Amino acid sequence: MQIDHVAIVVQDLDEALQFYGQSLGLTVAERLELPEEGVEIAFLPLGDAEIELLRPLEAQNSIGRYLTKRGEGIHHLCLRVADIEATVAQLEEAGARLAGSIRQRENGTRYVFVHPKSTHGVLLELYQPPEA
Amino acid sequence: MQIDHVAIVVQDLDEALQFYGQSLGLTVAERLELPEEGVEIAFLPLGDAEIELLRPLEAQNSIGRYLTKRGEGIHHLCLRVADIEATVAQLEEAGARLAGSIRQRENGTRYVFVHPKSTHGVLLELYQPPEA
Repeated sequence: MQIDHVAIVVQDLDEALQFYGQSLGLTVAERLELPEEGVEIAFLPLGDAEIELLRPLEAQNSIGRYLTKRGEGIHHLCLRVADIEATVAQLEEAGARLAGSIRQRENGTRYVFVHPKSTHGVLLELYQPPEA
Repeated sequence: MQIDHVAIVVQDLDEALQFYGQSLGLTVAERLELPEEGVEIAFLPLGDAEIELLRPLEAQNSIGRYLTKRGEGIHHLCLRVADIEATVAQLEEAGARLAGSIRQRENGTRYVFVHPKSTHGVLLELYQPPEA
Protein backbone atom coordinates (compact mmCIF):
# COMPACT_ATOMS: atom_id res chain seq x y z
CA MET A 1 0.00 0.00 0.00
CA GLN A 2 1.29 3.48 -0.76
CA ILE A 3 0.09 7.05 -1.08
CA ASP A 4 -1.31 7.54 -4.58
CA HIS A 5 -2.35 11.17 -4.34
CA VAL A 6 -3.41 14.02 -2.11
CA ALA A 7 -6.32 15.97 -3.60
CA ILE A 8 -6.66 19.69 -2.90
CA VAL A 9 -9.88 21.55 -3.74
CA VAL A 10 -9.28 25.07 -5.04
CA GLN A 11 -11.35 28.02 -6.19
CA ASP A 12 -9.22 28.97 -9.17
CA LEU A 13 -7.01 26.43 -10.91
CA ASP A 14 -4.79 29.01 -12.62
CA GLU A 15 -3.99 30.67 -9.30
CA ALA A 16 -3.36 27.33 -7.60
CA LEU A 17 -1.02 26.30 -10.42
CA GLN A 18 0.77 29.59 -9.97
CA PHE A 19 1.71 28.41 -6.47
CA TYR A 20 2.15 24.64 -6.89
CA GLY A 21 3.64 24.87 -10.36
CA GLN A 22 5.53 28.14 -10.71
CA SER A 23 6.42 28.95 -7.08
CA LEU A 24 6.93 25.48 -5.63
CA GLY A 25 8.36 24.13 -8.89
CA LEU A 26 6.19 21.06 -9.48
CA THR A 27 5.48 19.96 -13.05
CA VAL A 28 1.93 19.82 -14.36
CA ALA A 29 1.65 16.43 -16.05
CA GLU A 30 -1.93 16.92 -17.21
CA ARG A 31 -4.85 19.31 -16.89
CA LEU A 32 -8.32 18.38 -17.99
CA GLU A 33 -12.04 18.82 -17.42
CA LEU A 34 -14.02 15.80 -16.30
CA PRO A 35 -17.65 16.91 -16.73
CA GLU A 36 -18.93 13.49 -15.63
CA GLU A 37 -17.14 13.97 -12.28
CA GLY A 38 -17.93 17.69 -12.13
CA VAL A 39 -14.32 18.87 -11.82
CA GLU A 40 -11.44 20.43 -13.63
CA ILE A 41 -8.30 18.71 -12.45
CA ALA A 42 -4.53 19.17 -12.67
CA PHE A 43 -2.07 16.39 -11.87
CA LEU A 44 1.34 17.28 -10.42
CA PRO A 45 3.57 14.22 -9.96
CA LEU A 46 5.72 14.03 -6.84
CA GLY A 47 7.94 10.95 -6.77
CA ASP A 48 5.68 7.93 -7.06
CA ALA A 49 2.63 9.91 -5.90
CA GLU A 50 0.98 13.12 -7.04
CA ILE A 51 -0.87 16.20 -5.94
CA GLU A 52 -4.23 16.62 -7.63
CA LEU A 53 -5.76 20.07 -7.75
CA LEU A 54 -9.55 19.97 -8.10
CA ARG A 55 -11.78 22.83 -9.16
CA PRO A 56 -15.52 22.18 -9.03
CA LEU A 57 -17.32 22.87 -12.31
CA GLU A 58 -20.54 23.64 -10.44
CA ALA A 59 -21.17 25.09 -7.00
CA GLN A 60 -23.85 22.47 -6.37
CA ASN A 61 -21.93 19.25 -6.90
CA SER A 62 -20.18 17.51 -4.00
CA ILE A 63 -16.81 19.21 -4.54
CA GLY A 64 -18.54 22.58 -4.99
CA ARG A 65 -20.49 22.16 -1.76
CA TYR A 66 -17.31 21.11 0.04
CA LEU A 67 -15.55 24.25 -1.19
CA THR A 68 -18.44 26.47 -0.09
CA LYS A 69 -18.61 24.85 3.33
CA ARG A 70 -14.96 24.26 4.22
CA GLY A 71 -13.00 26.54 1.88
CA GLU A 72 -9.92 25.58 -0.07
CA GLY A 73 -7.68 22.81 1.28
CA ILE A 74 -7.04 19.09 1.28
CA HIS A 75 -10.14 17.24 0.12
CA HIS A 76 -9.05 13.62 0.29
CA LEU A 77 -6.14 11.24 0.64
CA CYS A 78 -5.87 8.35 -1.80
CA LEU A 79 -4.03 5.11 -1.09
CA ARG A 80 -3.10 2.69 -3.85
CA VAL A 81 -3.89 -0.91 -2.95
CA ALA A 82 -3.07 -4.19 -4.64
CA ASP A 83 -6.46 -5.83 -4.07
CA ILE A 84 -9.31 -3.42 -3.48
CA GLU A 85 -11.88 -6.18 -2.87
CA ALA A 86 -9.73 -7.69 -0.12
CA THR A 87 -9.07 -4.30 1.51
CA VAL A 88 -12.77 -3.43 1.43
CA ALA A 89 -13.72 -6.82 2.86
CA GLN A 90 -11.21 -6.32 5.67
CA LEU A 91 -12.54 -2.82 6.42
CA GLU A 92 -16.17 -3.93 6.39
CA GLU A 93 -15.29 -6.83 8.65
CA ALA A 94 -13.81 -4.27 11.06
CA GLY A 95 -17.02 -2.21 10.92
CA ALA A 96 -15.76 0.67 8.75
CA ARG A 97 -18.33 2.61 6.76
CA LEU A 98 -17.82 3.10 3.02
CA ALA A 99 -19.11 6.12 1.13
CA GLY A 100 -20.67 4.25 -1.79
CA SER A 101 -19.42 1.03 -3.33
CA ILE A 102 -16.46 0.16 -5.54
CA ARG A 103 -16.67 1.93 -8.89
CA GLN A 104 -14.73 1.31 -12.08
CA ARG A 105 -13.48 3.81 -14.65
CA GLU A 106 -13.31 3.05 -18.36
CA ASN A 107 -9.56 2.44 -18.15
CA GLY A 108 -10.12 -0.33 -15.61
CA THR A 109 -9.07 1.51 -12.44
CA ARG A 110 -11.30 0.78 -9.48
CA TYR A 111 -11.87 3.03 -6.50
CA VAL A 112 -13.98 3.48 -3.41
CA PHE A 113 -14.21 6.05 -0.65
CA VAL A 114 -14.18 5.31 3.06
CA HIS A 115 -16.41 7.62 5.08
CA PRO A 116 -14.64 10.21 7.30
CA LYS A 117 -16.67 8.92 10.26
CA SER A 118 -14.62 5.72 10.11
CA THR A 119 -11.22 7.29 9.40
CA HIS A 120 -11.02 10.01 12.08
CA GLY A 121 -12.05 12.81 9.76
CA VAL A 122 -10.25 11.87 6.56
CA LEU A 123 -12.09 11.25 3.29
CA LEU A 124 -10.00 8.25 2.29
CA GLU A 125 -9.98 6.92 -1.27
CA LEU A 126 -8.73 3.44 -2.04
CA TYR A 127 -7.57 2.93 -5.58
CA GLN A 128 -6.49 -0.11 -7.54
CA PRO A 129 -4.74 0.52 -10.86
CA PRO A 130 -5.74 -1.65 -13.84
CA GLU A 131 -2.39 -3.43 -14.02
CA ALA A 132 -2.46 -4.69 -10.43
CA MET B 1 10.69 16.52 -4.19
CA GLN B 2 8.32 13.89 -2.84
CA ILE B 3 5.58 13.41 -0.26
CA ASP B 4 7.19 12.75 3.11
CA HIS B 5 4.08 12.40 5.23
CA VAL B 6 0.44 13.26 5.69
CA ALA B 7 -0.35 14.24 9.28
CA ILE B 8 -3.77 13.51 10.73
CA VAL B 9 -4.88 15.04 14.02
CA VAL B 10 -6.96 12.70 16.19
CA GLN B 11 -8.73 12.79 19.52
CA ASP B 12 -7.69 9.34 20.71
CA LEU B 13 -4.56 7.65 19.39
CA ASP B 14 -5.60 4.14 20.44
CA GLU B 15 -8.86 4.44 18.53
CA ALA B 16 -7.13 5.91 15.49
CA LEU B 17 -4.58 3.07 15.50
CA GLN B 18 -7.48 0.66 15.69
CA PHE B 19 -8.53 1.93 12.26
CA TYR B 20 -5.23 2.75 10.52
CA GLY B 21 -3.32 -0.15 12.06
CA GLN B 22 -5.74 -3.02 12.72
CA SER B 23 -8.49 -2.36 10.17
CA LEU B 24 -6.50 -0.86 7.28
CA GLY B 25 -3.48 -3.03 7.99
CA LEU B 26 -0.70 -0.44 8.24
CA THR B 27 2.25 -1.12 10.52
CA VAL B 28 3.04 1.19 13.40
CA ALA B 29 6.78 1.88 13.14
CA GLU B 30 6.97 4.06 16.23
CA ARG B 31 4.77 5.72 18.82
CA LEU B 32 6.08 8.36 21.16
CA GLU B 33 5.29 11.48 23.15
CA LEU B 34 7.05 14.69 22.15
CA PRO B 35 6.29 17.03 25.07
CA GLU B 36 8.38 19.82 23.50
CA GLU B 37 6.08 19.73 20.45
CA GLY B 38 2.97 19.10 22.54
CA VAL B 39 1.92 15.89 20.79
CA GLU B 40 1.79 12.16 21.02
CA ILE B 41 2.56 10.77 17.60
CA ALA B 42 2.41 7.44 15.76
CA PHE B 43 4.27 6.81 12.51
CA LEU B 44 2.79 4.40 9.95
CA PRO B 45 5.07 3.91 6.94
CA LEU B 46 3.43 3.68 3.52
CA GLY B 47 5.95 3.03 0.74
CA ASP B 48 8.53 5.80 0.86
CA ALA B 49 6.15 8.09 2.77
CA GLU B 50 4.17 7.76 5.98
CA ILE B 51 0.98 8.65 7.76
CA GLU B 52 1.53 10.45 11.05
CA LEU B 53 -1.23 10.39 13.62
CA LEU B 54 -1.04 13.34 16.02
CA ARG B 55 -2.80 13.64 19.35
CA PRO B 56 -2.43 16.96 21.16
CA LEU B 57 -1.13 16.66 24.72
CA GLU B 58 -2.93 19.87 25.70
CA ALA B 59 -6.15 21.43 24.46
CA GLN B 60 -4.46 24.83 24.37
CA ASN B 61 -1.48 24.18 22.11
CA SER B 62 -1.72 24.74 18.35
CA ILE B 63 -2.71 21.14 17.54
CA GLY B 64 -5.21 21.14 20.40
CA ARG B 65 -6.82 24.34 19.19
CA TYR B 66 -6.93 22.97 15.65
CA LEU B 67 -8.72 19.85 16.90
CA THR B 68 -11.23 21.90 18.88
CA LYS B 69 -11.93 24.21 15.96
CA ARG B 70 -11.87 21.85 12.96
CA GLY B 71 -12.29 18.39 14.43
CA GLU B 72 -10.28 15.33 13.48
CA GLY B 73 -8.77 15.15 10.01
CA ILE B 74 -5.75 15.96 7.89
CA HIS B 75 -3.65 18.60 9.63
CA HIS B 76 -0.79 19.10 7.20
CA LEU B 77 1.02 17.75 4.16
CA CYS B 78 4.79 17.45 4.30
CA LEU B 79 7.04 17.45 1.25
CA ARG B 80 10.66 16.29 1.43
CA VAL B 81 13.02 18.64 -0.39
CA ALA B 82 16.71 18.37 -1.25
CA ASP B 83 17.60 21.96 -0.40
CA ILE B 84 15.21 23.69 1.98
CA GLU B 85 17.04 27.03 1.80
CA ALA B 86 16.71 27.10 -1.98
CA THR B 87 13.03 26.10 -1.88
CA VAL B 88 12.26 28.75 0.74
CA ALA B 89 14.14 31.41 -1.23
CA GLN B 90 12.18 30.47 -4.34
CA LEU B 91 8.87 30.66 -2.44
CA GLU B 92 9.69 33.98 -0.81
CA GLU B 93 10.74 35.36 -4.18
CA ALA B 94 7.31 34.35 -5.45
CA GLY B 95 5.63 36.14 -2.54
CA ALA B 96 4.59 33.09 -0.50
CA ARG B 97 4.13 33.56 3.22
CA LEU B 98 5.92 31.24 5.65
CA ALA B 99 4.54 30.32 9.07
CA GLY B 100 7.73 30.90 11.06
CA SER B 101 11.26 30.35 9.86
CA ILE B 102 13.35 27.24 9.19
CA ARG B 103 13.88 25.23 12.37
CA GLN B 104 16.29 22.40 13.07
CA ARG B 105 15.81 19.32 15.22
CA GLU B 106 18.61 17.73 17.23
CA ASN B 107 19.06 15.01 14.62
CA GLY B 108 19.79 17.61 11.96
CA THR B 109 16.49 17.58 10.09
CA ARG B 110 15.29 21.02 9.08
CA TYR B 111 11.71 22.04 8.47
CA VAL B 112 9.48 25.02 7.85
CA PHE B 113 5.76 25.56 7.33
CA VAL B 114 4.20 27.52 4.50
CA HIS B 115 1.09 29.42 5.55
CA PRO B 116 -2.27 28.09 4.22
CA LYS B 117 -2.99 31.57 2.84
CA SER B 118 -0.27 30.98 0.26
CA THR B 119 -1.03 27.33 -0.53
CA HIS B 120 -4.79 27.43 -1.17
CA GLY B 121 -5.75 26.19 2.26
CA VAL B 122 -3.05 23.59 2.92
CA LEU B 123 -0.70 23.81 5.89
CA LEU B 124 2.38 22.71 3.94
CA GLU B 125 5.53 21.53 5.67
CA LEU B 126 8.85 21.42 3.86
CA TYR B 127 11.37 19.03 5.29
CA GLN B 128 15.00 18.32 4.57
CA PRO B 129 16.48 15.16 6.06
CA PRO B 130 19.96 15.38 7.61
CA GLU B 131 21.61 13.22 4.95
CA ALA B 132 20.55 15.45 2.04
